[in-house]
Amino acid sequence: MKDVHAMAPAGVLQALGRVGISGVRKPVSIHRADGLHALAASFSIYVDLPATRKGSDLSRNAQVLAEIVDQTIVKPSASLEAVCVAIARELLRRHTYATEAQVSAEAEYFMPIGLTDEKTSFENFLLLAEVIATRSPGEVSVRKTVGAESVGMTACPCAMETCRTQLEGEYPLLKDPSMATMPIITHNQRNRTRLSFELSDDVDVEAESILEVISKAQSSQTYAILKRGDEGAVVLNAHRNPKFVEDVVRDALRFAAQNFRSLPDSTKVLVETESEESIHKYNVRASHRSTMGELRQAQQNNGLLPVNNSPSHSA
Amino acid sequence: MKDVHAMAPAGVLQALGRVGISGVRKPVSIHRADGLHALAASFSIYVDLPATRKGSDLSRNAQVLAEIVDQTIVKPSASLEAVCVAIARELLRRHTYATEAQVSAEAEYFMPIGLTDEKTSFENFLLLAEVIATRSPGEVSVRKTVGAESVGMTACPCAMETCRTQLEGEYPLLKDPSMATMPIITHNQRNRTRLSFELSDDVDVEAESILEVISKAQSSQTYAILKRGDEGAVVLNAHRNPKFVEDVVRDALRFAAQNFRSLPDSTKVLVETESEESIHKYNVRASHRSTMGELRQAQQNNGLLPVNNSPSHSA
Amino acid sequence: MKDVHAMAPAGVLQALGRVGISGVRKPVSIHRADGLHALAASFSIYVDLPATRKGSDLSRNAQVLAEIVDQTIVKPSASLEAVCVAIARELLRRHTYATEAQVSAEAEYFMPIGLTDEKTSFENFLLLAEVIATRSPGEVSVRKTVGAESVGMTACPCAMETCRTQLEGEYPLLKDPSMATMPIITHNQRNRTRLSFELSDDVDVEAESILEVISKAQSSQTYAILKRGDEGAVVLNAHRNPKFVEDVVRDALRFAAQNFRSLPDSTKVLVETESEESIHKYNVRASHRSTMGELRQAQQNNGLLPVNNSPSHSA
Amino acid sequence: MKDVHAMAPAGVLQALGRVGISGVRKPVSIHRADGLHALAASFSIYVDLPATRKGSDLSRNAQVLAEIVDQTIVKPSASLEAVCVAIARELLRRHTYATEAQVSAEAEYFMPIGLTDEKTSFENFLLLAEVIATRSPGEVSVRKTVGAESVGMTACPCAMETCRTQLEGEYPLLKDPSMATMPIITHNQRNRTRLSFELSDDVDVEAESILEVISKAQSSQTYAILKRGDEGAVVLNAHRNPKFVEDVVRDALRFAAQNFRSLPDSTKVLVETESEESIHKYNVRASHRSTMGELRQAQQNNGLLPVNNSPSHSA
Repeated sequence: MKDVHAMAPAGVLQALGRVGISGVRKPVSIHRADGLHALAASFSIYVDLPATRKGSDLSRNAQVLAEIVDQTIVKPSASLEAVCVAIARELLRRHTYATEAQVSAEAEYFMPIGLTDEKTSFENFLLLAEVIATRSPGEVSVRKTVGAESVGMTACPCAMETCRTQLEGEYPLLKDPSMATMPIITHNQRNRTRLSFELSDDVDVEAESILEVISKAQSSQTYAILKRGDEGAVVLNAHRNPKFVEDVVRDALRFAAQNFRSLPDSTKVLVETESEESIHKYNVRASHRSTMGELRQAQQNNGLLPVNNSPSHSA
Repeated sequence: MKDVHAMAPAGVLQALGRVGISGVRKPVSIHRADGLHALAASFSIYVDLPATRKGSDLSRNAQVLAEIVDQTIVKPSASLEAVCVAIARELLRRHTYATEAQVSAEAEYFMPIGLTDEKTSFENFLLLAEVIATRSPGEVSVRKTVGAESVGMTACPCAMETCRTQLEGEYPLLKDPSMATMPIITHNQRNRTRLSFELSDDVDVEAESILEVISKAQSSQTYAILKRGDEGAVVLNAHRNPKFVEDVVRDALRFAAQNFRSLPDSTKVLVETESEESIHKYNVRASHRSTMGELRQAQQNNGLLPVNNSPSHSA
Repeated sequence: MKDVHAMAPAGVLQALGRVGISGVRKPVSIHRADGLHALAASFSIYVDLPATRKGSDLSRNAQVLAEIVDQTIVKPSASLEAVCVAIARELLRRHTYATEAQVSAEAEYFMPIGLTDEKTSFENFLLLAEVIATRSPGEVSVRKTVGAESVGMTACPCAMETCRTQLEGEYPLLKDPSMATMPIITHNQRNRTRLSFELSDDVDVEAESILEVISKAQSSQTYAILKRGDEGAVVLNAHRNPKFVEDVVRDALRFAAQNFRSLPDSTKVLVETESEESIHKYNVRASHRSTMGELRQAQQNNGLLPVNNSPSHSA
Repeated sequence: MKDVHAMAPAGVLQALGRVGISGVRKPVSIHRADGLHALAASFSIYVDLPATRKGSDLSRNAQVLAEIVDQTIVKPSASLEAVCVAIARELLRRHTYATEAQVSAEAEYFMPIGLTDEKTSFENFLLLAEVIATRSPGEVSVRKTVGAESVGMTACPCAMETCRTQLEGEYPLLKDPSMATMPIITHNQRNRTRLSFELSDDVDVEAESILEVISKAQSSQTYAILKRGDEGAVVLNAHRNPKFVEDVVRDALRFAAQNFRSLPDSTKVLVETESEESIHKYNVRASHRSTMGELRQAQQNNGLLPVNNSPSHSA
């Protein structure tokens, strides 16, 4: 029987950047500080293809995935990204003609959170991993991106000022100095923020630490269980931290610089945030790419800037 | 060549309720009061199948769709539902073995709206149509459902009361009677509401009138273009009309009863609303099915109920 | 502090059919024959609301969900539907004003399958559960719907006949009697089929048995790992079982009648199937609702019908 | 009233790469060779933000969008990308602090196609446009990406060979030389392919020409209306052009080089293709980035390669 994949392609010889399988759903078991986590993950895995081959042997991709991922059910892995690194390395071992393997995965992640201990329940977050393994003579080098996404809340600082001005006309007592710090109505909404780091293979970051940075960068974290008084507390917290999407990005970068001190300067950082505006039918987005080195430099240069000049807190 | 569809099916003789094609994208041209509208619609069309036939001849469905819908490009139809009625009737004519045809369509609809005339721009809404044509000896009867969906905003009346109580402790001036009607912070969010009517073929409702009811039932309509002061006005409006999803449903039913006085008592009404809560990762929903007759009866019975007992308006 | 939810609503008194929360993501642990399964499930839970109340206390919904579902992590449940039944009953207990609770859930389900043992790997299926608990004086009655969905493959019997006729002209040897049973090219495609049963609370069906019926009803099951020869075997199998969506529905009903002999006659059965046609940009669908009693009756009445009249097997 | 957006941000001064609005739905009217086309488009538009500003004035984005896009209803534009270029330039004019504007749009596009003239009907394709406008002292430079996506069909060449071998054992006549070119069963499926070009502002490509390249690169184009014999013709055509996703990418690049001879060597080309495999639950993908210059070089170097070595055409 002919090996159709190994034949020369028809027409023009043309190497291809990426051939593979996408949207493969798999159960993954990972071992975290708080115990085992069973993830339902979606994988996409690719290799490049030289000009001399008609096809990439994709059944190898499915087999590598099955072997490495199914094995975590028996022997849990340390993280989703560790699973991706193992897959990428094995892909290069089996696709001998390939020089690069790309593996990406995302999985829902459940963590118990709550405003108070007795109202703690499992809520959903997202884990993200992306690995590129490159073969050069004698060695394989690996770069990995590790990220997470969390849904929280933003309250708009600009509409808050506008409303304050409008309400002061109708309710003159609002101009009393004792009312200066009272949070005023504005539009608030669901916000989805993603933070990720591109790292060399020997450096790790914890998903929980990434999620912590995101939660602090939003106007407020949100919760599944909120009894009546709790709703008030979350609303108040959000309105005492009104933020543009721009603020969410800046604060995520700032807290990332503070919380991940051991990451090398060369580490790339990406923040993406999207607010599902309550007063519009469309979304508002901001994003920024930087490096840990640049963030540290910016913080040093601007160290004297007062941190409490947020308009919503001012008199 | 064998007519495979007309053969007796293998195994067990079994009539089937519904066979057809779904997700067919088509351009539709309709003629409204304000001129021509070009819609990009999605159609699903089905007929039933008797036990004696192996298959439904689905190429007829595609052909009927093409003929009737493509023709609107040349000669625009009155409405999306009129197109669906024509399709359903023609399906029964060509599928001689069928006793029922089901056609559903949805299409994005752009209307110019704005807080003021100079800030008017096209915004997107959704049109919905569903038609069931039934063949009985000597005649075909048609029932049609006509609906629309609009995205607006809700502000929570409960968290507003909670926040008021909490803030009164910290800002005693808030307890001054002059401040009683001042809107207080709460969570507000994107709300998606759908209202539809099931009608006999000779009765019509206008999509624009449906959308008007929905907008009034939400805490506030939203807009694409909002300059600074406008944002304040929308936020204020929403907080002066705080609503649970329950209120949105009740008000949509109430306004429907008021605005569609000519619809017969037997007309079925369905309201569905969903708020993408800003303080939770999940959504909140309410829905109700009724008839115009029931709504009218309820309004008569409860006519003496004061309409201003909404907590957010009270002292 | 006012209890805003318990207040009388503004305007018209109007009971509402359904108020609740939707899209709540939760980890669920269930105990199956082959061991523990960790599911990532999506829940929607609702109760009705009397005319005298402004709002349903939705924080109870979130709390009930958290208590019952989070508890499965410690003490696994028997099934997704058992979790839903427990939620529905508890909802009625806590929403004392409600007469009906509706709970629906769906969750991805991983099972190891393979063409051969050594090519077995985890593949994804879908579990579906829906429960309605109704309160009448002195008791609560429960109806539950249990279903599953599987992705497989269909090959079109009609295009196969057409191609045979066309190819016979060009390749006369194809008309030789020895070639009569050779499968001929046709269009084949991804097929998604869902089978569900509406049961009283004391009757159970196994998800694995439902998935087995679906797989047999499609032209062929599909697999993640297929080495070269295996691909041929699956393709051959599908082309030896060419099926319209109509055939998939009829066969799912037929096999359901055979495999679930202990279900009472009153059990409702629903089959829905959708083929993502390779030769069209749109999908083809068929569905049918029946009862176990009707299916049994149909099978008895038609017992003499030869089962091998499928056109693709005939000379 | 404070201009909150123009204030210095709290904490760390940090320029941001991208701030804007996404998912804005708008009607767009474009003037093509065959007449007016009314598109329903989705826009995302962004600018960068200097470190000294707290916020980007997003109401300007909404206003620019409304002015330029709504104007096409009155005075149709030449293309979706021309609309995006106009938006990007105007964004830089109004956001005086920004150095880069990014605009992306996609819109469904209906074209009449058919296997024969009398079976022609409107089918849906996708138009894609992306524009980056960069401000440098004294001038604004614009790069635009123009692309399109079409859904067609692929048939697998490898499984065809496998099935041939397997069937030859069972049906010896198949080994007769006269049967050598007869297409054999394989798996075939829906394929989605996207081709795009990155161009300078003064160069144009026609969407219809891009769609033509894609259709030729797939195993077969698909159609909404296919009567019985037509289905056979499409199936035969696909099986006479069996293709891996790798082949689709290579052929799209090859036909792009042939059909777009006037594009400069520096033009970047991107092909992405995805087959929704009928024999797997996951998809198969291939993609490649190149330039027109590289493609021309490759074609010259490999000009002598015979084009008829495709395994499915060989004896």
